[in-house]
Amino acid sequence: MKPDTSAYRVVIVGGGFAGLYAARTLHRAPVQVTLVDRRNFHLFQPLLYQVATAGVSPGDIASPLRTVLKRQRNAEVLLAEVVHVDVLNRRVVFRDGDLPYDTLVIATGASHAYFGHDEWEPLAPGLKTIEDALEIRRRILLAFEAAERETDPALRAAWMNFVVVGGGPTGVELAGTLGEIANHTLKGDFHHIDPGDARIFLLEGVDRVLPPYPPDLSRKAHRSLEKLGVTVRTSTLVTDITPDDVTVRSGDLVEHIATHTVLWAAGVRASPLGQVLQAEAGAQLDRVGRVLVEPDLTIPGHPEIFVIGDLASYTHQGGKPLPGVAPVAIQEGHFVAQLIRRRVEGGALPAFHYNDKGSLATIGRAAAVADIKGLHLSGFLAWFTWVFVHLLYIVEFENRVLVFMQWAWNYFTSNRGARLITGQDLLPTVSPMPPHLLPVEQEERRPLS
Amino acid sequence: MKPDTSAYRVVIVGGGFAGLYAARTLHRAPVQVTLVDRRNFHLFQPLLYQVATAGVSPGDIASPLRTVLKRQRNAEVLLAEVVHVDVLNRRVVFRDGDLPYDTLVIATGASHAYFGHDEWEPLAPGLKTIEDALEIRRRILLAFEAAERETDPALRAAWMNFVVVGGGPTGVELAGTLGEIANHTLKGDFHHIDPGDARIFLLEGVDRVLPPYPPDLSRKAHRSLEKLGVTVRTSTLVTDITPDDVTVRSGDLVEHIATHTVLWAAGVRASPLGQVLQAEAGAQLDRVGRVLVEPDLTIPGHPEIFVIGDLASYTHQGGKPLPGVAPVAIQEGHFVAQLIRRRVEGGALPAFHYNDKGSLATIGRAAAVADIKGLHLSGFLAWFTWVFVHLLYIVEFENRVLVFMQWAWNYFTSNRGARLITGQDLLPTVSPMPPHLLPVEQEERRPLS
Repeated sequence: MKPDTSAYRVVIVGGGFAGLYAARTLHRAPVQVTLVDRRNFHLFQPLLYQVATAGVSPGDIASPLRTVLKRQRNAEVLLAEVVHVDVLNRRVVFRDGDLPYDTLVIATGASHAYFGHDEWEPLAPGLKTIEDALEIRRRILLAFEAAERETDPALRAAWMNFVVVGGGPTGVELAGTLGEIANHTLKGDFHHIDPGDARIFLLEGVDRVLPPYPPDLSRKAHRSLEKLGVTVRTSTLVTDITPDDVTVRSGDLVEHIATHTVLWAAGVRASPLGQVLQAEAGAQLDRVGRVLVEPDLTIPGHPEIFVIGDLASYTHQGGKPLPGVAPVAIQEGHFVAQLIRRRVEGGALPAFHYNDKGSLATIGRAAAVADIKGLHLSGFLAWFTWVFVHLLYIVEFENRVLVFMQWAWNYFTSNRGARLITGQDLLPTVSPMPPHLLPVEQEERRPLS
Repeated sequence: MKPDTSAYRVVIVGGGFAGLYAARTLHRAPVQVTLVDRRNFHLFQPLLYQVATAGVSPGDIASPLRTVLKRQRNAEVLLAEVVHVDVLNRRVVFRDGDLPYDTLVIATGASHAYFGHDEWEPLAPGLKTIEDALEIRRRILLAFEAAERETDPALRAAWMNFVVVGGGPTGVELAGTLGEIANHTLKGDFHHIDPGDARIFLLEGVDRVLPPYPPDLSRKAHRSLEKLGVTVRTSTLVTDITPDDVTVRSGDLVEHIATHTVLWAAGVRASPLGQVLQAEAGAQLDRVGRVLVEPDLTIPGHPEIFVIGDLASYTHQGGKPLPGVAPVAIQEGHFVAQLIRRRVEGGALPAFHYNDKGSLATIGRAAAVADIKGLHLSGFLAWFTWVFVHLLYIVEFENRVLVFMQWAWNYFTSNRGARLITGQDLLPTVSPMPPHLLPVEQEERRPLS
């Protein structure tokens, strides 16, 4: 027992990449770490679209936080939702209790935003949680089932239209995988529709997909998507969503796409804890609610409060704020852990510097684009890099093996085994079925011998 | 195209063991098969308790019906809920359409029953669907999390009491696996509780667990459960369930068990389609709503309507009705498929005869009991048999490999990787936390350097 060294309390709120890597990097620091999250697992968010598209199961991309931190003596996990921070008395506040800290690390991330149209949320689910992913999976699979039963050609076509809003990495991954599902996975599954007739629309407001990537990779991604049968519409804005259609505007042209399946992959809204820090500690927020942080990732005037991951807005000298991606979150987590350790030991560290190893986006089976320190890759090589990097960062060995097996299987068979429609048990309503669903005549019915 | 042979329509309602094996056995028969289910997957129900106890993911024990029947040319799948049968006009009726049949096979199974206390259902979920299993998993994991945070000793003890109602195979499996989770899986996961202190109660109304099994195997199962720390109470009835406790009566003794986690593994209620057959075709039902079937598994006066699986009550000459287990359902499915084929070709078959290959129940890691044609096994050998038989019957090869890997991993590591709390995002409310959650003194807090 070393009571003097374990007396320094670090509370980390959020078990995503930023928070979890901060906690793990503190494993030899003379501090007591409490990782607080309202969920009991770390989610490997870059593969969430694979759950939404039935490629892997939720359990394959999530690891219980207690398992991940089991062998770390100086860390414990607390399942609770932080609703407030008492900055003056240095306590995080839950609905039913509170917890003192010496240093606080807030890493509660961001969610998607509907640009002032929150009424679109039930019609166009986003992709941030396991529940979101299962809801999207349910809608995609039910749409094909409804099309199979629908007999009115126009109504059937509407069930087979899929609209993905947002041409960033998540939108590109979703649209590409949808193209693959329609053209390969579901081939031969239905008797009354050809899943290959599905139309997948990817809508992006600016003039190219993957806007943060170099333009040549955007062009390559665009072409790969079209090869998978995806209709890519750039410079196109969504102006309305109803249960039966999406209204889009490109310049002066207004169009309606009849569809029941809209997936939202646009907009960012930072965690509400940013506003708490604004009110309680005078932190400044950017347009979407991210906290502007100092070069050491603290907030001004509060060296004991760090904000990292998607909730933080960090700007290198004169540059653009760092993007909300896993590598940034991981490096920020590492940095604050090292800085906290150094400070407790009486030292300091130079400012945080993000080491950009490149960008990756996958489009479908064996297609991806990569920008690795200026080297632009596409096609199979980029896809292989993508697979390798993602397997490397999956936290638990068991999950890594399972996901690898599942991918290898999916790759060679075009199968997607997790095609379960779960959740609300509602079936879509279709037009009343005609009397002869099967291609036989009523008169041919034979009496049972 | 052979219009004359494909003109004979067989409609099978329900994609469980009975319905699916009927459909598959018809693969070379000169008939058109339509398998109707309101879910899009076949569920390997004998392993559902493994989902409820975080051992495997839902996707591992479910196979999309379309995948299973993909290569069967004479079969199609229809996602729809049958609400009525028009016996006179030979049509099954959905909410939004209908479908003609020449032969109808009803295999919609059974659910659990609360002995006239339906108000217990939200307090004590049963285990019939994927959603049930995830809800049970959520409650078990949240109970340990709440205990970790709870500081009042009596309230903490209540969170660590688990009550399983019903000592049949499902109840024994749930209680045994709970014992394993408490004693092995969660060991070292928590800082403020010892999961091994959890108390697991298995309540059974009659005088022994596994009542349909030979008495010596019941005794062995009882002992194995006690070794895992399960408190087995036979001849004990549940008289009330509230959110905070369960009232039980053994003879004249009435007791209360303080608990928030009650799992229901008792009672049977047959699918409501039994009542439809009673009203429309004069079928007779037993006490729990199962349809009494003829020696050829049809209902009296309707040689074109078969009832198989858990919805059927079939009695060999003078014997007891066959139990609602997978082997019975599978053999009934085979039988009706062969009989239908024979009839269409102008032949007949002798009455159905169930070939009882034995009974198996597992209790925990490497413990099980088996009665194989009079040979009674227990311990590791029985467990190994159990694993082998279950892997053999999992419908899809991919799932078989995944489940095997998962089991091997769980077996050697005592880990259960699917420990995700998903679904409703509600955290349990505990007593307000004391100021010092970590074992340090407030005074020791040091200023940040």
